[in-house]
Amino acid sequence: MFFHDKRLQYNAKPDKPAPMYAKMLQEVIGGQFGEMSVMMQYLFQGWNCRGPAKYRDMLLDIGTEEIAHVEMLSTMVARLLEGAPVEDQEQASQIPVIGAVMGGMNAQNVVMAGMNPQHQIVAGSGAMGVNSVGVPWNAGYIVASGNLLADFRANLNAESQGRLQVCRLYEMTDDAGVRDMLSFLIARDTMHQNQWLAAIADLEAEGLGMTPVPSTFPQEQEKSDVVYQFWNLSIGQESAQGRWANGPSIDGKGQFEYVAAPQPLGEAPELQPADPRLHGTAKTPMPAMTSPGPDTSQPAQQ
Amino acid sequence: MFFHDKRLQYNAKPDKPAPMYAKMLQEVIGGQFGEMSVMMQYLFQGWNCRGPAKYRDMLLDIGTEEIAHVEMLSTMVARLLEGAPVEDQEQASQIPVIGAVMGGMNAQNVVMAGMNPQHQIVAGSGAMGVNSVGVPWNAGYIVASGNLLADFRANLNAESQGRLQVCRLYEMTDDAGVRDMLSFLIARDTMHQNQWLAAIADLEAEGLGMTPVPSTFPQEQEKSDVVYQFWNLSIGQESAQGRWANGPSIDGKGQFEYVAAPQPLGEAPELQPADPRLHGTAKTPMPAMTSPGPDTSQPAQQ
Amino acid sequence: MFFHDKRLQYNAKPDKPAPMYAKMLQEVIGGQFGEMSVMMQYLFQGWNCRGPAKYRDMLLDIGTEEIAHVEMLSTMVARLLEGAPVEDQEQASQIPVIGAVMGGMNAQNVVMAGMNPQHQIVAGSGAMGVNSVGVPWNAGYIVASGNLLADFRANLNAESQGRLQVCRLYEMTDDAGVRDMLSFLIARDTMHQNQWLAAIADLEAEGLGMTPVPSTFPQEQEKSDVVYQFWNLSIGQESAQGRWANGPSIDGKGQFEYVAAPQPLGEAPELQPADPRLHGTAKTPMPAMTSPGPDTSQPAQQ
Amino acid sequence: MFFHDKRLQYNAKPDKPAPMYAKMLQEVIGGQFGEMSVMMQYLFQGWNCRGPAKYRDMLLDIGTEEIAHVEMLSTMVARLLEGAPVEDQEQASQIPVIGAVMGGMNAQNVVMAGMNPQHQIVAGSGAMGVNSVGVPWNAGYIVASGNLLADFRANLNAESQGRLQVCRLYEMTDDAGVRDMLSFLIARDTMHQNQWLAAIADLEAEGLGMTPVPSTFPQEQEKSDVVYQFWNLSIGQESAQGRWANGPSIDGKGQFEYVAAPQPLGEAPELQPADPRLHGTAKTPMPAMTSPGPDTSQPAQQ
Amino acid sequence: MFFHDKRLQYNAKPDKPAPMYAKMLQEVIGGQFGEMSVMMQYLFQGWNCRGPAKYRDMLLDIGTEEIAHVEMLSTMVARLLEGAPVEDQEQASQIPVIGAVMGGMNAQNVVMAGMNPQHQIVAGSGAMGVNSVGVPWNAGYIVASGNLLADFRANLNAESQGRLQVCRLYEMTDDAGVRDMLSFLIARDTMHQNQWLAAIADLEAEGLGMTPVPSTFPQEQEKSDVVYQFWNLSIGQESAQGRWANGPSIDGKGQFEYVAAPQPLGEAPELQPADPRLHGTAKTPMPAMTSPGPDTSQPAQQ
Amino acid sequence: MFFHDKRLQYNAKPDKPAPMYAKMLQEVIGGQFGEMSVMMQYLFQGWNCRGPAKYRDMLLDIGTEEIAHVEMLSTMVARLLEGAPVEDQEQASQIPVIGAVMGGMNAQNVVMAGMNPQHQIVAGSGAMGVNSVGVPWNAGYIVASGNLLADFRANLNAESQGRLQVCRLYEMTDDAGVRDMLSFLIARDTMHQNQWLAAIADLEAEGLGMTPVPSTFPQEQEKSDVVYQFWNLSIGQESAQGRWANGPSIDGKGQFEYVAAPQPLGEAPELQPADPRLHGTAKTPMPAMTSPGPDTSQPAQQ
Repeated sequence: MFFHDKRLQYNAKPDKPAPMYAKMLQEVIGGQFGEMSVMMQYLFQGWNCRGPAKYRDMLLDIGTEEIAHVEMLSTMVARLLEGAPVEDQEQASQIPVIGAVMGGMNAQNVVMAGMNPQHQIVAGSGAMGVNSVGVPWNAGYIVASGNLLADFRANLNAESQGRLQVCRLYEMTDDAGVRDMLSFLIARDTMHQNQWLAAIADLEAEGLGMTPVPSTFPQEQEKSDVVYQFWNLSIGQESAQGRWANGPSIDGKGQFEYVAAPQPLGEAPELQPADPRLHGTAKTPMPAMTSPGPDTSQPAQQ
Repeated sequence: MFFHDKRLQYNAKPDKPAPMYAKMLQEVIGGQFGEMSVMMQYLFQGWNCRGPAKYRDMLLDIGTEEIAHVEMLSTMVARLLEGAPVEDQEQASQIPVIGAVMGGMNAQNVVMAGMNPQHQIVAGSGAMGVNSVGVPWNAGYIVASGNLLADFRANLNAESQGRLQVCRLYEMTDDAGVRDMLSFLIARDTMHQNQWLAAIADLEAEGLGMTPVPSTFPQEQEKSDVVYQFWNLSIGQESAQGRWANGPSIDGKGQFEYVAAPQPLGEAPELQPADPRLHGTAKTPMPAMTSPGPDTSQPAQQ
Repeated sequence: MFFHDKRLQYNAKPDKPAPMYAKMLQEVIGGQFGEMSVMMQYLFQGWNCRGPAKYRDMLLDIGTEEIAHVEMLSTMVARLLEGAPVEDQEQASQIPVIGAVMGGMNAQNVVMAGMNPQHQIVAGSGAMGVNSVGVPWNAGYIVASGNLLADFRANLNAESQGRLQVCRLYEMTDDAGVRDMLSFLIARDTMHQNQWLAAIADLEAEGLGMTPVPSTFPQEQEKSDVVYQFWNLSIGQESAQGRWANGPSIDGKGQFEYVAAPQPLGEAPELQPADPRLHGTAKTPMPAMTSPGPDTSQPAQQ
Repeated sequence: MFFHDKRLQYNAKPDKPAPMYAKMLQEVIGGQFGEMSVMMQYLFQGWNCRGPAKYRDMLLDIGTEEIAHVEMLSTMVARLLEGAPVEDQEQASQIPVIGAVMGGMNAQNVVMAGMNPQHQIVAGSGAMGVNSVGVPWNAGYIVASGNLLADFRANLNAESQGRLQVCRLYEMTDDAGVRDMLSFLIARDTMHQNQWLAAIADLEAEGLGMTPVPSTFPQEQEKSDVVYQFWNLSIGQESAQGRWANGPSIDGKGQFEYVAAPQPLGEAPELQPADPRLHGTAKTPMPAMTSPGPDTSQPAQQ
Repeated sequence: MFFHDKRLQYNAKPDKPAPMYAKMLQEVIGGQFGEMSVMMQYLFQGWNCRGPAKYRDMLLDIGTEEIAHVEMLSTMVARLLEGAPVEDQEQASQIPVIGAVMGGMNAQNVVMAGMNPQHQIVAGSGAMGVNSVGVPWNAGYIVASGNLLADFRANLNAESQGRLQVCRLYEMTDDAGVRDMLSFLIARDTMHQNQWLAAIADLEAEGLGMTPVPSTFPQEQEKSDVVYQFWNLSIGQESAQGRWANGPSIDGKGQFEYVAAPQPLGEAPELQPADPRLHGTAKTPMPAMTSPGPDTSQPAQQ
Repeated sequence: MFFHDKRLQYNAKPDKPAPMYAKMLQEVIGGQFGEMSVMMQYLFQGWNCRGPAKYRDMLLDIGTEEIAHVEMLSTMVARLLEGAPVEDQEQASQIPVIGAVMGGMNAQNVVMAGMNPQHQIVAGSGAMGVNSVGVPWNAGYIVASGNLLADFRANLNAESQGRLQVCRLYEMTDDAGVRDMLSFLIARDTMHQNQWLAAIADLEAEGLGMTPVPSTFPQEQEKSDVVYQFWNLSIGQESAQGRWANGPSIDGKGQFEYVAAPQPLGEAPELQPADPRLHGTAKTPMPAMTSPGPDTSQPAQQ
């Protein structure tokens, strides 16, 4: 169960309104790597966790923190929208002939052109669960597989993409209040990258996971001859210079091999005709049936 | 530019049809971590790459390989669907009173109940760009940020989730032909996990990225006092046992600190009223306007 | 900011696993009116609230409670999936001729046919942020307009649809553990319907909203002659029997009027040709241009 | 079956083109509460209606009216787009060094920046089935449950959100032609709010529904001790001041109770391990299998 | 404006309920080529039509007819659901050990496994705006470009895919009532394929469009040397046998040419570094900045 | 299997950056008729093809070419973004009173207002798999039915819509480098329209398909009296002037008939009550049950 403290985890107060920037900031609320994603991702990973208690507890700690980040960002967006322009003035600058548009625009119009119009029409100056182009967040962004090593790698990625986006947003504004809040989120993302790297080390030390994920699948069932091959499928060999093409594999179980001119190992496939009742195109013409297609699925009919 | 060889990268031939399994196998074609995702992800990362040539080339090598994986899986699905039941027989088992349903079902009906009906109605016994519940793949799954360390972490995750799903699908069938193909994909995913770990090591060795991502953002701009704190927000302290709560941080720049009873650092926010022309709810009643809302956005009107 | 208590708000323990039922129960986690919807809806309404403090506080109280409902349902789904079948056995029941499928199925196959396959392949026996057919939850379900009367009506609807769905799910199972949890959720939804009706009464009593929403728009700007008319657009007049066609309007400001044979009030529209550079179809043939279309948008060219 | 009259239900002619406003107006065509939503919602409720004929008829009356509203708005959007700028002129204002952008922009560029580019590229100056940020309408917005009281509450909400959005759009323009059409839509939404309130009163008077929805579920099956409790889960007690925390419940069956310091009623859950064939993380390390996971699902194997 | 006649365009009454078939039939209501698509597609094409009146009128005629098709199919689905099973009985067939499931299932369970559970939980035995796997219809399926020749080709395709799907559904049932309704829809789709072919002939005869679409673009602006080339990009030359590789082009303006071994005409691209404030990966290491990135976008700073 | 050549199929180099135009150009990468759609559509049609080898080969030839088109467009977008503005300057132009915004904007702000902000925040100056309003591409756009005549009509439409959009984008820019690339794509689309018309002619000549699609369904099963009727459902008879209303049908099997005043052929439907356990609204009031609803689905209870 959850409890709410009305105080924000950290300040969320801009120096000035900036409705276009409010639109941009939505990316880290409702984008693929916004705070809604990590919030729901960590909570579902925690609720579904069948591993040791410390991981479950840690997941619910950080998932609970992320709800507070959505809260801070939503508060910031609501404040950035205070004083946003309401009235569209493009008409005032038009002369009534086809295609003729000129003069008369001012900064208010530019801001209106760059705003998310739903911030006014739909939300009445409030934050929304959408990204910076207005596409709603969806749960297809969540990663929660039940394999903690796989998922902690997902989390490391999420905090990397997330910190990258917040740093970019930091560069895109001069507002000291906005930057103050973002400096807090950037710091937390630094912690969280460290945290997932530590959690991965912890899992490996406890024998609960290793490369390749999942480590419990019997590797002798793999097609062993291609396990450490790099296939050069793009003409030219710059890719031969990388660590991935030379030396021992990272999992310590093989040697990387660079296959400079790989060839297909399979045949050119040819498919069988489909059931005639599906009316697809076969290799030879089929007469129009005189009644709905015969049921060829019954053994008795063969 | 691209060229196609009609031969498959590896065999894709089941011993027997299995339409329900065809539905399940769609997960690794059109799911969040299906081959369509890694194919498009690596291609976009390669096309957008502004880093050294070896990374760009490597990305396009593996992106090109993944197109072949979609091809193999699609061929397999088309073959698993050959001989699938077409006719719904539930009506034959019903007696004509409300709610009465009994007897008469056989294996064909069960298969039909478990199939993706679009495999017949929409695709005429062919593979589709959807996941195992029929939701279409979408480009919101793609990760391509322009920061290679961030993206290689995304790729490591994708290959981890992908291999996990393929291993699960391997366990879910006894068909030797299907397992043969999956053993190839599992092997390639082992390589690709190793490859991304190697690529990460390579980037770090070349000074092109390090923890925290992005490493070019000036860390003195972060809110320094919370950079290495673990906030215990879920009552109980099992999470204190982890590596993330003890010892030096993984980036080597600080010490993890466990904050057992964290408190909010911000204020309880209070928002200003919105523009009256948005007709939201304010703190006190507003009389119905006698005309559309005044334009309060013009300095002259204040 | 938020805190988590590891105890559930109420019990979430089934008597037995039931993977098909786990799929169905997802509707009230990630469906249009699942708990994710009300959780995010009430939180966003609270965070964006510019009205009196008691409404903001109440919204955050109930939003916080709903997180706990997602938690209970996710726990229940994870438990219903324990012991779910993993192996697809349809192949065992097939004979290797086209379309031939017969015999050999058992209850395990039926359960597998009826499960959400992502519960195994993607989540490894865990709950997901999806509805009962596997479509991911999306933020397009959220309603938060900044007008509290409008939004409390949305909330009343959400709790009505939600309780209806939970009651249906209650009827669909005999499992005493599942029913115990659902009886708690049903009770809370009863409270929450009462709560929103009370909140609506409260708003109206305080003068902060009334019918029609928004009540601050000047009604003299409405096209007054159609304000209380019921237009009978479906041939036949059964609809004349309703309260909506007779007597004073509910807002007390007019009389309902039944328009038995309504006629259009507007003209048949005719559109002007589009800019020729858009290459649409005009009323008369246009010759192929000999160069890209002229820029007709500049006053100088007219 | 349906018939079309070429005349519009009401005028839809702007005084002047305004392409940015055309983008905004799309919200009430293809947004969550646009006319496409109510049109499809009322039609599906009508077609699925198993209640008394007057409700079915009334639903189809209003559903048919809403098609005409989509028609009016689409016509208006098509006209607002006449004369929209086609050519992007940002390049003309750039000097060819990295990051250098300056001078030279005029109103046409601002309009182009603020338009929905699909209005030109995809629709060739026509209306689309999208909202004000270009996200396509989807049927996940529809509410049609088979329970009329639940659905009439949904409809009341839809007309409240819809009228609110149209009023905001009215404030956002000065164009007399646009305002004329909107004044008609606002009037109809006033009627429709009254209509759904009347329909709710009618249903209750006929004994076909009451609070809580659904009223046919046996209330003794609810967890009775929490039915009228308000749980204060957000620290601080402003929420104690509301009608929802004091006095008789609105359904007249209980007394509201304010629980100032609520405690969880359930246990801290602990999940069982998943089937090993799913390769999730268990509480203790599992050795890599030497063959695909054993089938533990067969009784014979235990 | 629109009017409704309560009679259906044609009969929609099954002999018996069949809930699984109801799920399948949803494909032609809410699928990519379901009746919702053609209904909205033809209406938007008509409303946006800037061409001769007969095309606009014809589009609105057929668009209006398609609303009636959605109505018929929705009625059929609602009737196929009457008597559908409500209670999940998988639990009754389970023995309480992990993974053990056996015996005891009957036809009712199979039907429940194969149904769309939302038909009960969400719609209470009613039709929905979704496809056969439960994915909601969305307006991204609509085609309406303003160029009638392009759009009539889209319509010809829509009626071809639609008739194909309805024919498949016809084959999938033995129910005489269902087949009666489908035989009407199949006949109308035959008409509509003929109608769009006739409309294309009409447009061409009137000089309003021809191949290639759009015919008003000056063809001398095309890269003329590749206009009629077939590029053989898949190793092997079976594709040389087709009409597309031999003889005059269909538009009569050129000769098809088969390029057996095509080569790229462009260069291998190399991208410039991005703005350092975006923190992407460049070709050489960048030191961590000591402050947020410099603004390099101002000419004065260069 | 696939191979990559690092050279582009054709040049993709703009004369100057133009970030707003980069946003617009995304339409033909990730829009409904963007190159991702035709790429995936042709590949899936080829992989699923059960018809003669020349069609399969041809589909994979063109599908492989389309990957190169995505590559060219992505490269172009990445280059158009070089030098895009990063910093939002709207705040600099604001004075700190509600609604007051004025002066101080320059071209950089206009460009920023018109850009897709994800191009900076998410992709770091790279192309994305989205359309011109930022909505991600999804596989619901793909058409691949297994019936080649149906699918070639889909392809003809795709190339018509695609060429139309590219021509519009050509008109929207003056940049010689962009126009050079587009002139190549327009030429290829001319070829591809010719190609699909040729492929349709080829299919018909070989007897593999004819109008109506599918031609293998027995036409005597159609409701013959409505097969060639045009129903005039929109008041007024402009539609009587078209080829579709006069003369022999295009398939040569009938005569078009104009039905000037069509009447419904079906009855006004009335639905049966739903199972009481679904708690819908019936024709007469139902008492609240005293226990969960009876199971009326068992034969024994009848």
